[in-house]
Amino acid sequence: MRKLLIIGIGAGDPDQMTVQAIAALNRADVIFLPDKGQEKAALRHLREAICARFIEKPRRSVTMETPRRAEAGDDYRGVVDDWHARIAASYAALFRLELAEGQTGALLVWGDPALYDSTLRIVERVRAGGLALDWEVIPGISSVQALAARHRIPLNRIGEPVLITTGRKLAEGLPQAPDGVVVMLDGEQAFAKIAPEGLEIFWGAYLGTPDEILIAGPLATVSDEIVRVRAAARERHGWIMDIYLLRRCD
Amino acid sequence: MRKLLIIGIGAGDPDQMTVQAIAALNRADVIFLPDKGQEKAALRHLREAICARFIEKPRRSVTMETPRRAEAGDDYRGVVDDWHARIAASYAALFRLELAEGQTGALLVWGDPALYDSTLRIVERVRAGGLALDWEVIPGISSVQALAARHRIPLNRIGEPVLITTGRKLAEGLPQAPDGVVVMLDGEQAFAKIAPEGLEIFWGAYLGTPDEILIAGPLATVSDEIVRVRAAARERHGWIMDIYLLRRCD
Ligand SMILES: C[S@@+](CC[C@H](N)C(=O)[O-])C[C@H]1O[C@@H](n2cnc3c(N)ncnc32)[C@H](O)[C@@H]1O
Ligand SMILES: C[S@@+](CC[C@H](N)C(=O)[O-])C[C@H]1O[C@@H](n2cnc3c(N)ncnc32)[C@H](O)[C@@H]1O
Repeated sequence: MRKLLIIGIGAGDPDQMTVQAIAALNRADVIFLPDKGQEKAALRHLREAICARFIEKPRRSVTMETPRRAEAGDDYRGVVDDWHARIAASYAALFRLELAEGQTGALLVWGDPALYDSTLRIVERVRAGGLALDWEVIPGISSVQALAARHRIPLNRIGEPVLITTGRKLAEGLPQAPDGVVVMLDGEQAFAKIAPEGLEIFWGAYLGTPDEILIAGPLATVSDEIVRVRAAARERHGWIMDIYLLRRCD
Repeated sequence: MRKLLIIGIGAGDPDQMTVQAIAALNRADVIFLPDKGQEKAALRHLREAICARFIEKPRRSVTMETPRRAEAGDDYRGVVDDWHARIAASYAALFRLELAEGQTGALLVWGDPALYDSTLRIVERVRAGGLALDWEVIPGISSVQALAARHRIPLNRIGEPVLITTGRKLAEGLPQAPDGVVVMLDGEQAFAKIAPEGLEIFWGAYLGTPDEILIAGPLATVSDEIVRVRAAARERHGWIMDIYLLRRCD
């Protein structure tokens, strides 16, 4: 039996690592790291910084080549499904090769592994494909929590729900009872395309990193500013990761 | 100016503490702890264990008496509002007395301070009431994340939203698109009162503690079992904290 530790490493600040995540890193025989070419340099640096800082004695690290996703057209799920199947096949081959029976490998996942991340689904597929595999999940601070903490706001109103969704979904329409709606994975600035009346936004980019940007205010007032600041930052860094909370004004 | 650190301490396992939270504890001049009579003994023990394990040199600790909430009748929000006002007044008096100008106090919050916790709202009120106060929020692993990690499941389906809500809200009706609905604060086992067809549940109690219980399966199949196990555990321990994810079966 091979074992994997799927470790949430926080959303940008190495200090978000938990005691549990640090211990898990130090239990692994092999650390699996994404291929350099395929990840934003800044994310790779964070992962490397975390390994350098928290791993007590050097461990073997192995690069995982992750097959590329086809362009998602209309069939978003079909494309993702096919892509995950290919990733699972390539991971299965890698685990057989690089992890001996009885050994433990670590996979470092951005933020929390339970939120908009496919590692858990892929590992499930690797096992379904016939490789005897067990795994443990170590939760990590997500970008949702980093956003709330930096703006010093609760995610929910008293006794009210909070919805976590994607830019793609928001573009399809604002959910009915948006006491609090957290939007992730928004490459299209869906917030700038909805009726802003009565809404406020708490926006954050590069949270937890030295480049962090925070903007908050009534959506009608700050929407243009966010679009402008976001475009400039993206231009300057070559990439951006941002997230926001929308809610009705008090 | 007085300063507060509002520190998420995780949802039951001291190993969920982050490096950031540990550093914050060690930056505080004074640690504010809830009154012993008013908190479940198990929660108090966790808080004490965290202080004993992670605080490097002894700090002054101060007990906070939290006024009790009136029974919530129809006017749930009104009752909570009045209760928060009284807590804010009592905290303001305590901070003036126990924290000198320029000093820093720490408040230890269960799970993540952004999720179903009133500390941020109360501190806001203390400042609005006229006490010059600044604060920082340190995110913590929430019970939502602990639940997902222990069941090794993602909170969302691919590209789909996830809703976090309360037992009270679920009892009012299952939300329309429950790709994933996480239910907290459910003293009434609302899951047992909805139509179970086509739904599966991932339930967890005392997550992260030695008493942790996990049950998962089709809601129609495991609902009774959860009700039974929950009642027995509650009887045995004298209290319970539980949370669950409901979603459509594959
Ligand atoms: C593929 S998802 C991964 C989420 C991750 N598992 C988590 O728990 O935060 C990537 C999205 O997370 C958000 N995100 C992650 N890290 C962020 C950061 N440091 N600042 C702002 N947004 C971030 C952005 O919305 C981004 O589009
Ligand atoms: C007042 S809320 C506080 C939530 C906390 N801020 C968090 O982030 O998890 C209390 C609710 O959290 C959930 N909860 C907290 N800790 C838990 C644990 N260790 N196991 C199961 N549920 C827990 C339960 O649903 C409980 O009713």
